[in-house]
Amino acid sequence: MEGEPISALFTPAMVVDVDKVKKNAKKMIERCEKLGVQCADIMTGGSRRCIVVSTLAEACFYADHGFDDILYAYCLPFDKVERCAALSERLDLFQVLLDHPDALEQLKKRPLRDGRLWHIWMKLDCVNGRAGVLHSEPEALRLAQAIAETAGVELTGVYAHCGNTYNCRGVEQIQVVAQETTSFTLQFMEKLKAVGITCKSSIGSTPSCSHPVKDMALLSEVHPGNYVFYDVQQSVIGSCSLEEVAVRVLTRVIGHCPQRNQLLIDCGWSGISLDGGGKLPTGYAVIEGHPNLKLLSMTQEHGRVEPVSGQLDYSKYPLGSMLTLIPYHSCATAVMHPVYYVHSEGRLLGKWTPTRGW
Amino acid sequence: MEGEPISALFTPAMVVDVDKVKKNAKKMIERCEKLGVQCADIMTGGSRRCIVVSTLAEACFYADHGFDDILYAYCLPFDKVERCAALSERLDLFQVLLDHPDALEQLKKRPLRDGRLWHIWMKLDCVNGRAGVLHSEPEALRLAQAIAETAGVELTGVYAHCGNTYNCRGVEQIQVVAQETTSFTLQFMEKLKAVGITCKSSIGSTPSCSHPVKDMALLSEVHPGNYVFYDVQQSVIGSCSLEEVAVRVLTRVIGHCPQRNQLLIDCGWSGISLDGGGKLPTGYAVIEGHPNLKLLSMTQEHGRVEPVSGQLDYSKYPLGSMLTLIPYHSCATAVMHPVYYVHSEGRLLGKWTPTRGW
Repeated sequence: MEGEPISALFTPAMVVDVDKVKKNAKKMIERCEKLGVQCADIMTGGSRRCIVVSTLAEACFYADHGFDDILYAYCLPFDKVERCAALSERLDLFQVLLDHPDALEQLKKRPLRDGRLWHIWMKLDCVNGRAGVLHSEPEALRLAQAIAETAGVELTGVYAHCGNTYNCRGVEQIQVVAQETTSFTLQFMEKLKAVGITCKSSIGSTPSCSHPVKDMALLSEVHPGNYVFYDVQQSVIGSCSLEEVAVRVLTRVIGHCPQRNQLLIDCGWSGISLDGGGKLPTGYAVIEGHPNLKLLSMTQEHGRVEPVSGQLDYSKYPLGSMLTLIPYHSCATAVMHPVYYVHSEGRLLGKWTPTRGW
Repeated sequence: MEGEPISALFTPAMVVDVDKVKKNAKKMIERCEKLGVQCADIMTGGSRRCIVVSTLAEACFYADHGFDDILYAYCLPFDKVERCAALSERLDLFQVLLDHPDALEQLKKRPLRDGRLWHIWMKLDCVNGRAGVLHSEPEALRLAQAIAETAGVELTGVYAHCGNTYNCRGVEQIQVVAQETTSFTLQFMEKLKAVGITCKSSIGSTPSCSHPVKDMALLSEVHPGNYVFYDVQQSVIGSCSLEEVAVRVLTRVIGHCPQRNQLLIDCGWSGISLDGGGKLPTGYAVIEGHPNLKLLSMTQEHGRVEPVSGQLDYSKYPLGSMLTLIPYHSCATAVMHPVYYVHSEGRLLGKWTPTRGW
């Protein structure tokens, strides 16, 4: 397979442009170095240290492949305490996250062997509105103090996710949210300092880390995720240009429907996902090089493509011809593919097999 | 794992009630026997014959596990002709589907070894509006004749999918579409007969096969798919009752958000899918036993749950407690899970590992 053109792939197939991935990773590492914070992600420049994951299956997968210093940045699920304990006892540094005193109780009930400490990040909600103790609530400081005072555990850091940057359009709006999240986090760090507690701090999201504000240099770490691949959504938000997007789904024309002025392609929602709800001017994806085509709707294995305006010229899209989809949300697309085909300038280099499940 | 209660599973986990699956399959087989048509699906009552798949990966998977008489009911993708040829030369009966003369040309270019014939179903569009030649167009008859007259291939049957039953609400509407699809198909079979062509006929969709009309007895086969699991969508359409749905996603509470009157659960769109768009009164799923809860929105690994009305009583949903989601669309949910946990009356029997990709 190596060296073959990507056009030889069976479709639908997710292809990853490794040069863009490297470029996106390098740019992010440089941005982070400029800020003076660590780039807490898999793109570790070869160190295989200091990574953030959102499922325990990923943590185990990376631990099994020589990675260490892993933060499982997900509110401690009580069914997985024992598996977290095993990783904590096996790795140099496995870190968990929580936002509730009940979770601290769970960890107290399972002390680690050999005098090891549970390394805990406290999740702070800086008005993102997902997980975390709201930064302004007195519970936040109380929980941090409780962690700091508990035997057998350590308050490693304070962690905030500015997922609300996904509602932004353009750098200016992104930086308003990035500044707000940074400020709330730093204010909270001051409150901690006032009661004698010091620990790390981290904020993240691909938009904010793609356009960091100066104050983010005062944090210990940042944790972007999607930036390695980017996608149409990030280009709409303003995190990247469409040229920087490293992933595509290759698909082929499998049907002509002149009575509906449509094409059928061999990529349905099982190949690209329903993320975005089809609300782009070009529907569920951008069809590269064909700005007048729209991925209108999908079933599990079929996509319906029609012109944004005018009549389809079917001679341009014979059965079997290939179209290239730029995903709306590369995370959602990646979940659908058991294999990613990695290429450089259109020549296959190999496959990446992602881990799945929880 | 066998014999353990499903409550011991790590979440999110997809669980399959094998008793309901058997019951759903048995009912469908009985319905089909009553009609006198074959039940073309994996629930073959042990025969491992006469199955319909929608990806070539599935065809290979089943062929590797002792199944035969497989219909790959997907408009012949030109990149996969060689793999289809290999299956045709290896199995007793491998069948392909097409709806365009160009696809027939592809098959003519790759004659099968040992005098074997390509077994071809022609896809007829009975106003479902996805793949197929429109039943009323003269091209339909022309294509069928071309197949029948081509050396090295055989017109095995005419295949129509009444996916438009998914827009129905209630048995009466379902049967109107089932009747229409059946009538159009039978009319087309008459046209074929008039030019001296006889072959099989098949229509399908879970709603129409759950409530078949009398005339469907005149077809050779039917091909429902989703009915083994069913789901909320099918109960809304009227194919089944909610009690007949055989799959659930187990999830646990991982966060309390009193300031937003919400719970967080450990099932995001990577565990249940975005199918349905959250348009049920209870959002993206039905939360079993909690009619006042709504799965409002999701990120990749988080679900936000809030009451349909009133204030949440958090004491009823402690962190770590389990909730059970009935999926909106079980096909879309199943795609997200690398493993299905099979149980009978809540006791685990084992795992099913689905095939993935194309």
